[in-house]
This record gives sequence, C-alpha cells and structure tokens, in this order.
Amino acid sequence: MPKALITTVPYGDRSRLSLEQLESAGIEYLINPIGRKLTEEELAEMVTDFDVIIAGTEPITEKVISKARCLKLISRVGIGLDGVDLLAAKRRGIQVSYTPDAPAPAVAEMTIGLMISLLRSIYVANTQMHRGEWQRHFGRRIPEVSIGVIGAGRIGGRVLRRLAGFGTPRILVNDIRPDLKVAPQLKIEWVDKETIYKEADLITLHLPLTMKTKNMIKRDQLMLMKSDAMIINTSRGGIINEEDLADVMNTGHLSGAAIDVFMQEPYKGNLAKIDRCLLTSHMGSMSIDCRTRMEIEATAEVVRFFLGEPLQNLVPEEEYTIQKQVGQ
Amino acid sequence: MPKALITTVPYGDRSRLSLEQLESAGIEYLINPIGRKLTEEELAEMVTDFDVIIAGTEPITEKVISKARCLKLISRVGIGLDGVDLLAAKRRGIQVSYTPDAPAPAVAEMTIGLMISLLRSIYVANTQMHRGEWQRHFGRRIPEVSIGVIGAGRIGGRVLRRLAGFGTPRILVNDIRPDLKVAPQLKIEWVDKETIYKEADLITLHLPLTMKTKNMIKRDQLMLMKSDAMIINTSRGGIINEEDLADVMNTGHLSGAAIDVFMQEPYKGNLAKIDRCLLTSHMGSMSIDCRTRMEIEATAEVVRFFLGEPLQNLVPEEEYTIQKQVGQ
Repeated sequence: MPKALITTVPYGDRSRLSLEQLESAGIEYLINPIGRKLTEEELAEMVTDFDVIIAGTEPITEKVISKARCLKLISRVGIGLDGVDLLAAKRRGIQVSYTPDAPAPAVAEMTIGLMISLLRSIYVANTQMHRGEWQRHFGRRIPEVSIGVIGAGRIGGRVLRRLAGFGTPRILVNDIRPDLKVAPQLKIEWVDKETIYKEADLITLHLPLTMKTKNMIKRDQLMLMKSDAMIINTSRGGIINEEDLADVMNTGHLSGAAIDVFMQEPYKGNLAKIDRCLLTSHMGSMSIDCRTRMEIEATAEVVRFFLGEPLQNLVPEEEYTIQKQVGQ
Repeated sequence: MPKALITTVPYGDRSRLSLEQLESAGIEYLINPIGRKLTEEELAEMVTDFDVIIAGTEPITEKVISKARCLKLISRVGIGLDGVDLLAAKRRGIQVSYTPDAPAPAVAEMTIGLMISLLRSIYVANTQMHRGEWQRHFGRRIPEVSIGVIGAGRIGGRVLRRLAGFGTPRILVNDIRPDLKVAPQLKIEWVDKETIYKEADLITLHLPLTMKTKNMIKRDQLMLMKSDAMIINTSRGGIINEEDLADVMNTGHLSGAAIDVFMQEPYKGNLAKIDRCLLTSHMGSMSIDCRTRMEIEATAEVVRFFLGEPLQNLVPEEEYTIQKQVGQ
C-alpha cells in the first residue's frame, strides 16, 4: 500500500475532502505528528518509508532526500519552492509538483487588508485601546500615496488589480519580466527596485525566496526608504533582513511594517517588541477556501501519481534553472 | 472682530490651510484648549463670547446654546448631527452647516480594512505575536461570505462600490430609502434588518445616530446573529449597545467585532478586555486628505458667513424633521 507523509499542518482541518481523496484511493497517510513546521533533522528521521511527501515549507534538503529511500514525489501544498532542493530531487528521480495558483487570491486580499491597517494605524490604535490609551491617529488613503510593488506575478498582479478599485494612487512596479497587461485599469510606472525604495510610501513584496532575493532588503535598502515609508512582506521570510528591520525601526525610521513571513517560524524575535510592526503568523494563504483548494490540488496530484495518470502540476523546468544558476 | 471657537481637535494639525483661511479673513479663533472632546458643561462655559463654533461631535445642547449669547453659526466638521440640538439652534436663529461628503472616502476605505482584519484575524494574530504566541488563524475571503450593509448612503454606498473589486460576495443591504443604483456592479438583495442579523457573516453599520437608531442593536439583535458572525461600527457610538456586545462576546458569541465609535469618547470599557474585539479611536474620517477637506469646507462656510455671502452647506430641512419626529 502506498504511503504518504503529510508534513504541512494544519491539513484536512477545515475540510476533510483531501483526506477522503487519499482514503478512497487506498493511500495510507501520516499527518506530521509534531504539529508545527519540521526541522531538517525531524523530517530526515520521519521520511524514511514514505513514497510521497505532501509538503509545506519545511526544508526538503539533499540530506532529507538521501534518507527518503522510497520517495518518488514531493507534492507541495503552495507555491514557494525555496524549501525544496529541486536538483537533489531530480538526481534521485523524484518528481516535484506544486499548486501555484491556489494561494494567490487569499494572499492578495490579506495584503490589501495589511495596507489599510498600516496606512490608518488600525493595529496601533487597537493595541493602545486594549491598554486603555486613547490616541487618534492620522492616516492616509490608498489613492493619496505612492505604492511600490516588487514582484508582479500571480500574487502581485492580483494586488494591483484589487488596488484599482480604490482610486488611482501612483503605482511603481518592479519585476524581472514586466507584464504590461497586468492591471490595465492602472497607470503603472515600471521602475528599478532602487526607485521604489526611494519614492514609494508603501512597499509590498511578492517574490520567491532565492539566493538572489535572500537579504535583498538590508539596512542599506531600508535607509533609502522615506522616513515615514511602510513595508509589507507576505512572500517569504529572509527577503527582508529581520534584524536590520528591527534595528532601523528602533531608531524611528519607517512609520510601519507588516510582516507575515519569517526566516524561522514560529517567529520569536525583536520585531515583536515594536508596536508599529504588525505581525501575523504566515497566514497569507490561510483562507479556508484557498487552503482547501491547495490541499485538494496537491492531494489530487498524489492520487494521479499512484494511479499512473499523467501529473498536471509538475514544477516547470525554469524553476530548476533558477536554483541551478543561483547555486541554491 | 468676529470670534470663532474651534471645539474639534486635532484641527489645523496636518495642514494649516484652514487656520490661514480664518487669519486672512480677520477672524479671531480659539482652538479647544482642553485638547479632547468637550463635555456639555465645559462647552457651556467656554462658548459665551463666540460668534461661531467650528464643531466636532461634542454635545451642543439647549443648555449650551442658551449660554452662547453671541452665537450665529454652528459649522460642523463632519456629517453626524447627533451632537447638535438643531431645533434649539433654530429657535435662537442660529444656522447650522456641515460637510457631509468630505469624510465618506476615508470612512469607507477604513471599513474595508477592518473587514479584512476581522475576516483574517490579522489583529488577533498581531496581539498574539507581540505576546510571543504563534497561532495560525484560518480566515475567509470577502467573496466567500455574506456581507450585510445597514445604511447605504454616502458612506455605505462607497463601501459597496469598493467591495465590488473583491469578487462577488452575497450582499444584503438595508436602507430606509433603497437606492437601486448604489453599486451597479453588485447584485444586491434589499432586505429588512432582521434578515441581515440572521443571515450575514459580516455586518457593517453606516447610519446616523438618532433616537430611532440608538440601541438599535442590543442583546436580542446580537443573539439573532450567527455564532461566528462579525460586526463593524464606524458610524456612531450607541447604535450598538456596548455593554450588551461585551456580554455576548464574553460568552463566546460572535467571532469578531470592530468598533471605532463609542457612547463616551475617550472610551474606557469592557470591550477593551476582549482580544477579538478590534478597537480604534474614532479614526474613520482621520485620513489627512479627508480631514483637511472637512476642515477647509467647514472653515470656508464660516468665512462666507462673516463676508455676508450665501452659505453653501446648510443642513437640509429633513434633518430638522428627523430630530423633531424622534423628539431628540
């Protein structure tokens, strides 16, 4: 009987559909018994006898893969591939699939919510009110600020299209491959990242984590930003250097930040001491509908694999090339 | 020299334009020296020698008006008239003007931000992260829920039109005078309030405070709502009974609430002890651009008054009728 290790948690929590898919295909499964993101060591120990991993963002490294002697398929619940050593998988003949579209609507909508929370200091007022302090904060509306979007793909593109409903802010966008049709309602200025750092009031990142984007925003880039600029990261931890962000905010630089993703999760770090840093727990894709869709798509791929049907969501060759180029 | 008492604070804080209007017209002014919303007694004592009040939401009652022996114009910075005894003003020949359109875009945009904060538990996660707790919350997206809008006028209408950019949720709307063209992009169901209480997942109020809407939502109405429903009030304190809301939330009813306006401001009450109650400090209209526009419009009316020009933003007769009917 084929065996699937489900490392991502929660799984099957709000909808049992994905578990029922496995059960009716006769696939035995184990859901990560530790109940949080696994470390490399924990995963290496756990993975030995499984044919497939239904994976989250945990590190599926060469070391893990070398222990996984039965592994034939890694089916990612989500889009980011920074946790998976694609080249090591390929060397052992292990296929990798993912669900690139499913999380995008949830992440994009949450990003809009974080934007308004930052612009209007909703989260700061809430903290103060719960402490018994009454302070009325001035804010700005979306059409009154310059918004910088770095990464205009599946998620960044949706953020842009949602923004169009709020009026016409100045929109600065950076992407390695500009898509001039991404949000036809908006007048977009395609610029380099440095222009965004210098000129945007509100910056949001929608990028994969690669060796090129890791630590892309360090002290130097943060200091290029306006003193009252705001920054949002709902993409991957590590793109903004967390310690540098905490350091510059502690000096009074930047009027706010919203960080949903961290180098190490669960996060415990200095940003939690800063009231004007809005922190959430990697919840970008955690809407019930998108999460359910991600689980069902990733599980359907596993079922197809065991039935010998063609896979539909294999990671494209260019993702391997990116990892090869940057030596990840 | 004519004298204006500016009771609303902050005023002229982010833009001096309104103060400059007064200065160049030769109007002497005093900005509320107490620096917070005045009580009836404080205002009655302060108002004696002034020709106009540039007013916030403080109580301009019969008692206040009787002390204001020079008063000829009350120019409200904002839209709500619950603080002004219109009939008492009329009896003394005091005119009342307001700025009904200026705050609407800011309140509507903040309401959308509060919706996403509630739906995705952004504010709960932020509180937990700052306490060192990591808990990933499931949420729902706007197009996945039924949204109930009570009051579809200047602000509610804008909320509806902004929602249209997020997909197509089920939209239930109640208004005394349904405007069938309010948001042509949306399929709106015009229903009674009870249907909204029973069927909406997320309810938002955009109403004036009158004797008819005061305590409109008490324990009985709250208990009609779904156990995981959410409610937003960015209109006026007192429409939802605060103590009843705290009581039912303390029993576990409702999954969240976002309250920006209170019976008594600054607010100190039991809602501040409830983590899933998102509290802000009457900030709906506090975007710099809308606040500035409100101040400039209210001040321009004062300048017109002293120059003997026709007033442009007099409160319409129907507002007097409403206060007369409900005996406010």
